[in-house]
Amino acid sequence: MRILITGAAGMVGRKLIARLAKDGALRGRKITALDLHDIVPPQAPVLAGVDVSIHTGDLSAPGATATLVASRPDVIFHLAGIVSGEAEANFDLGYRVNLDGTRALFDAVRLAAFAPRLVFTSSIAVFGAPFPDVIPDEFHPTPLTSYGTQKQMSEALLADYTRRGFFDGVGIRLPTICVRPGKPNKAASSFFSGIIREPLSGQEAILPVPRSVLHTHASPRSAVKFLFHAAQIDGDAVGPRRNLTMPGVAVTVGEQIEALERIAGAEVVKRIREQPDETVWAIVKGWPTRFEARRGRELGFAAENSFDEIIRAHIEDELGGKIV
Amino acid sequence: MRILITGAAGMVGRKLIARLAKDGALRGRKITALDLHDIVPPQAPVLAGVDVSIHTGDLSAPGATATLVASRPDVIFHLAGIVSGEAEANFDLGYRVNLDGTRALFDAVRLAAFAPRLVFTSSIAVFGAPFPDVIPDEFHPTPLTSYGTQKQMSEALLADYTRRGFFDGVGIRLPTICVRPGKPNKAASSFFSGIIREPLSGQEAILPVPRSVLHTHASPRSAVKFLFHAAQIDGDAVGPRRNLTMPGVAVTVGEQIEALERIAGAEVVKRIREQPDETVWAIVKGWPTRFEARRGRELGFAAENSFDEIIRAHIEDELGGKIV
Repeated sequence: MRILITGAAGMVGRKLIARLAKDGALRGRKITALDLHDIVPPQAPVLAGVDVSIHTGDLSAPGATATLVASRPDVIFHLAGIVSGEAEANFDLGYRVNLDGTRALFDAVRLAAFAPRLVFTSSIAVFGAPFPDVIPDEFHPTPLTSYGTQKQMSEALLADYTRRGFFDGVGIRLPTICVRPGKPNKAASSFFSGIIREPLSGQEAILPVPRSVLHTHASPRSAVKFLFHAAQIDGDAVGPRRNLTMPGVAVTVGEQIEALERIAGAEVVKRIREQPDETVWAIVKGWPTRFEARRGRELGFAAENSFDEIIRAHIEDELGGKIV
Repeated sequence: MRILITGAAGMVGRKLIARLAKDGALRGRKITALDLHDIVPPQAPVLAGVDVSIHTGDLSAPGATATLVASRPDVIFHLAGIVSGEAEANFDLGYRVNLDGTRALFDAVRLAAFAPRLVFTSSIAVFGAPFPDVIPDEFHPTPLTSYGTQKQMSEALLADYTRRGFFDGVGIRLPTICVRPGKPNKAASSFFSGIIREPLSGQEAILPVPRSVLHTHASPRSAVKFLFHAAQIDGDAVGPRRNLTMPGVAVTVGEQIEALERIAGAEVVKRIREQPDETVWAIVKGWPTRFEARRGRELGFAAENSFDEIIRAHIEDELGGKIV
């Protein structure tokens, strides 16, 4: 079993590699080779009996993807991409990396004609307001960002290339990943993780939106589970609609904070400071709230059942089980 | 008023040019220049006081679209593209013409920064079975052809480029255009027109599918009306969802034939010969049947109200009002 991961240096990529290293197998076969790609060198795990190759560079550069798939991996995890804010700020870069890079990878696989399973991380950013109360699987994508447009176009390619038999693709639309480890970043969604992560580490966190804001979350642990399941699922069971909305936990910000108080106590919750930010709220208002994710659940994708579970996963995976 | 038309040599392009020549104005302004583009030279209308330029070539060729938009047209009708069957048979050509050509045109407009109204002919081929009984405007595109995928991706670009202010785009999803003038072609949909056109001209027509097949149609005259309306509509009224399903007449093949009998008599209808073709039927089964087209209607797009009207439009526009 040879596996290629693009975007291997990112948060989800690193966690996926750790899980692959721990399991040692995928689709019932021993992992013998890992090809890890990113724009910066991904960290190579030291694994007995596994041939680990490190690749760097821009996927849209001429010839880059042909080189990358020359080893004919059995499974490709295509996680590479620039984030929403960057794609919005830099139009050319966003289309080059998120659309042209993806198409170049898909075309290299097509031309090499080895038809691997290809798992692509799409995003709920393919959806744009206004929404019904619960967004059904059949709801049309109407992204309100260039990032969402690039993901939507990549999804369309994935479905067509799969229909043509060039590869066996599964696109998974990730909800907001929470609790993201690490530091706050400039993403408008950063506070969803920040209001849990910072108080649990003894630091203050800013809440820029009202507590009534409803949003759907899944833990980094669930994101990795989604990827594993997407790599192993029976392609025939998926059928021609290859892009699946992943399940998640739909909660208000107020419910996030209540869960934090149940788990960590009132003193920890006091570290959240409400400081309304109209700019952030304006962006968040256009985001989807609650998904049906019926097909994803029926196909065996599972997330946490409560926000309490999401917080506990963070404490176990990132804080060694301890709260400051 | 300067107007650019791509795909100007095609059936809809020629009818659009004839209508523009007849009206002499668009958006309340006198037409002073027409730029006509196609892969083969479009026929140039002779119009007093109108500067007509003919352009030929592949839109995806380097520099081609920059040259084409250098005259900064006020309105662009982007009709160019290869048809469904050809895009399915020739993978590379389909993506190059229908996706790369469209993107090249959009990017040339973006880089020239003159923000014209841009009308794009999409297709109901963006939809793929299974469907609800009536397909709502919010139904997700899940094309089952590469052609439909290319249209879907172009729609996504159009929406994002409009949101960014690069142009003021309106995408119109045409239903099957019926009655198409001319000869039968190899499109699986050819019979929808053939069973009306051939009998009205004294010739035999083959019906390859059961009479129960339900499908949505609009006349070539309506297609031109859609284009005109899309060029003139208030962009703010359209809102961020720029791709609109056009209205049409949803009828079964049996109802098409009943309409023909009402208008032309039983002897004409006898020229239709039923000759089931499993291959054609298998394709037709995956096609959408009936659309809500609520937004399109609310925004003032109108088609015929009955299939009788569609037949009468054909007799008036193509047969000089006479039936053989």
